[in-house]
Amino acid sequence: MSDLAFQDYYPDNTAHCYGCGRLNDQGLKLKSYWDGEVSVARYTPRPYHIAIPGFVYGGLLASLIDCHATGTAAAAAYRAQGRDMDTEPPLRYVTGSLHVNYLKPTPLGIQLELRGEIVESTDRKVIVEIELFAGDELTVRGEVVAVKMPEGLISLSLV
Amino acid sequence: MSDLAFQDYYPDNTAHCYGCGRLNDQGLKLKSYWDGEVSVARYTPRPYHIAIPGFVYGGLLASLIDCHATGTAAAAAYRAQGRDMDTEPPLRYVTGSLHVNYLKPTPLGIQLELRGEIVESTDRKVIVEIELFAGDELTVRGEVVAVKMPEGLISLSLV
Repeated sequence: MSDLAFQDYYPDNTAHCYGCGRLNDQGLKLKSYWDGEVSVARYTPRPYHIAIPGFVYGGLLASLIDCHATGTAAAAAYRAQGRDMDTEPPLRYVTGSLHVNYLKPTPLGIQLELRGEIVESTDRKVIVEIELFAGDELTVRGEVVAVKMPEGLISLSLV
Repeated sequence: MSDLAFQDYYPDNTAHCYGCGRLNDQGLKLKSYWDGEVSVARYTPRPYHIAIPGFVYGGLLASLIDCHATGTAAAAAYRAQGRDMDTEPPLRYVTGSLHVNYLKPTPLGIQLELRGEIVESTDRKVIVEIELFAGDELTVRGEVVAVKMPEGLISLSLV
């Protein structure tokens, strides 16, 4: 398996995402990888990503879920086609809907782990379930409906 | 009606939220106000809050919805009790769940407006629906279940 993250394969003009774009230097630069059938991303929130002192801001957790899910959707679509992520045509997904359940407060100051699984897949969309762990503790669950980005939009030179 | 935003009344130890805390200098500092029965917040995303170039990052939009909804829940709870937001005991809400539907891409570079309405309210939780507009265009809908923060947590000196 490659050392590169899913997001490292995104075409340049779709690699500016604040959450996971390798070309957005002010962004979070989330990186997602396969671990067997499960996708994994790890992220340590910055000290100012506060909800109330000592706990992580829920909007950041929603953002991590969002980007990990769309990355997982893309990687799974390549896999389903038996292709590596550096082959043409590019496959990229955007978020149609995002649902996040905050099960308990997520402690600030430690690395978090997101684990993603595909629960439904069609040609047009992929539904991804995400579990977010702080240490061994499951603190947040998310579900994302990721919608395939039209190829014309990916290949447009928008920047 | 006061010139202060809902978030300006948050007790100091719950005013560090990355999305809306007045004491978080690296945060977004979202401010919410009443406009009759509807709550309103306006925010201009920063140039790096990119999804794909030209459009706003969905995780940021989820964050704005989250904070505007919990602020609206708190303000509505004071209103229901016939109290101003600077009276005791403090009422503060955290996010139990967050659901966001991205109806169309939200353009980057203009001020966005969020409008919130209470759709259900009990002693323990408030459900808030949010519509997010870019100019006249409704681009995102959100629903937040906001849960009342235990008074003991608000009065704890966590910092």
